[in-house]
Amino acid sequence: MKIALLQAEAAPLDIEANLGAVRDAAAEARAAGAELLLTPELFVSGYAPRELAGWLTPERVEAIPRRLAELAAGSGIAVAASFPLARPDGSFAIAAGLWDAAGAEVLRYEKVHLWGDEEPLAFAPAAPDLAPAVADWNGRRVAFQICYDIEFPEPARFLAERGADLLLVPTAIDGNSAYVPEVLIRARAAENALVVAYADHARAADAGADPAAGFAGLSIVAGREGRVLAAAGAGPELLLAEIPDPAPIAAGTADYLADRRGDAYSAWESGESEESGAAERPGLSSRP
Amino acid sequence: MKIALLQAEAAPLDIEANLGAVRDAAAEARAAGAELLLTPELFVSGYAPRELAGWLTPERVEAIPRRLAELAAGSGIAVAASFPLARPDGSFAIAAGLWDAAGAEVLRYEKVHLWGDEEPLAFAPAAPDLAPAVADWNGRRVAFQICYDIEFPEPARFLAERGADLLLVPTAIDGNSAYVPEVLIRARAAENALVVAYADHARAADAGADPAAGFAGLSIVAGREGRVLAAAGAGPELLLAEIPDPAPIAAGTADYLADRRGDAYSAWESGESEESGAAERPGLSSRP
Repeated sequence: MKIALLQAEAAPLDIEANLGAVRDAAAEARAAGAELLLTPELFVSGYAPRELAGWLTPERVEAIPRRLAELAAGSGIAVAASFPLARPDGSFAIAAGLWDAAGAEVLRYEKVHLWGDEEPLAFAPAAPDLAPAVADWNGRRVAFQICYDIEFPEPARFLAERGADLLLVPTAIDGNSAYVPEVLIRARAAENALVVAYADHARAADAGADPAAGFAGLSIVAGREGRVLAAAGAGPELLLAEIPDPAPIAAGTADYLADRRGDAYSAWESGESEESGAAERPGLSSRP
Repeated sequence: MKIALLQAEAAPLDIEANLGAVRDAAAEARAAGAELLLTPELFVSGYAPRELAGWLTPERVEAIPRRLAELAAGSGIAVAASFPLARPDGSFAIAAGLWDAAGAEVLRYEKVHLWGDEEPLAFAPAAPDLAPAVADWNGRRVAFQICYDIEFPEPARFLAERGADLLLVPTAIDGNSAYVPEVLIRARAAENALVVAYADHARAADAGADPAAGFAGLSIVAGREGRVLAAAGAGPELLLAEIPDPAPIAAGTADYLADRRGDAYSAWESGESEESGAAERPGLSSRP
């Protein structure tokens, strides 16, 4: 299966312009044989939490899911997009949705770990009791993470244990965070034996020399054993990746989901375990 | 603080020869200003599970901890070494111990995740109720993982949450497992904001072209944000690394331990959570 990742610059607060850019990318991705287009975090509104804090109203964002459904159906390719979602309680989520090529929404997600000082000005994280879902789509089991979420091993593990074989990750990272695609994304793919697609905003041509002042680009698709299936540079790019079909773990290679020792991890956390070689031998200073 | 990793070839089943190699490396490491020498998985016996299965008896291995204590005290440098440990129940553990520069054992560990078909011929994994410990040593909080253990995110996270700032990892990997040091070790260091020291056996000069037929070498020391603090090639080497003192997380950088959402992870696992955006909207095919 071929997938495409849009690495581009969004226009802050200009939803029409950004939906137009997604539509153009969807057409290009479909023409290239891709079955899915993944776009960066909050690409539809622009990733601009401080500006969004003074701009967001339910009325301004309520039509976005319907517009994305129409866009996917009109393009004939599945579209995964992140957008501001108005909750019934008046707060906003950094959300993502997956619409199939007929425009049906097959998956929705709310970001669990907000990043930094600015995102909380505009957004609230997912409620603890809202578990991430895994959806069936085109023969795969697909789930979302958004940006900071995937830097924690716990959620990706939770999704892999529920059969996810493709994690879609809209993101927005600056140039000081290159270790995330280079190390952490490949690790999530390796340790869970699945594909991770990680789509960032493009670095602006006028971003200057300070890595922190501007997006990193560096979108990546990683697979088993941390293999890099496709990787972008810093600038605008439609990144295409051929991803392998889900398959059993080959003999002689690590089967991390089968070999993990959930029994032991639970016993350690319960505090009912004895501590490795501490109490019975004098002179040991280890402690819990 | 400077530490040293011994990447060398062990002599299978020749404990005297291997202890001699550790003693020589300890002297060289101390002369280079290191405070600790880390050695590969089962270096004291050789990493040869199939041969060990027919050779191991309690009598042949019971003196090893005392010998390592004497070696550390005689060398004036802390020594972290992995060895076969006879358990009271007649089974053997792939164990590791840390002896300080006075020869006091400050930490002992038993491998939790055995690898492949051969290790279980000679060894049994740690009991589920034996939790890994964290020891105070020279101003640091130190813990062990052995080889396959560190490829799983759960144990390193458990140790980091208990204050570990230096993970010592004796290992034995073949040349097809280069993604482990290149990706997973750096990820464990990044996502837990600690130092991981990973010491492998040296690749033999006559190992030939098949990566799987021989050790990888590629010992590594990684730190925050996955930085490579030191990295070895394939052949024999005493790898020296200057590791930073434990320190608070700098402003503007990811604080993974503070920002993880244990409340949410627990709620998801309990099955009491609703699933993200599934039930209330028709047409969604996601499921737990």
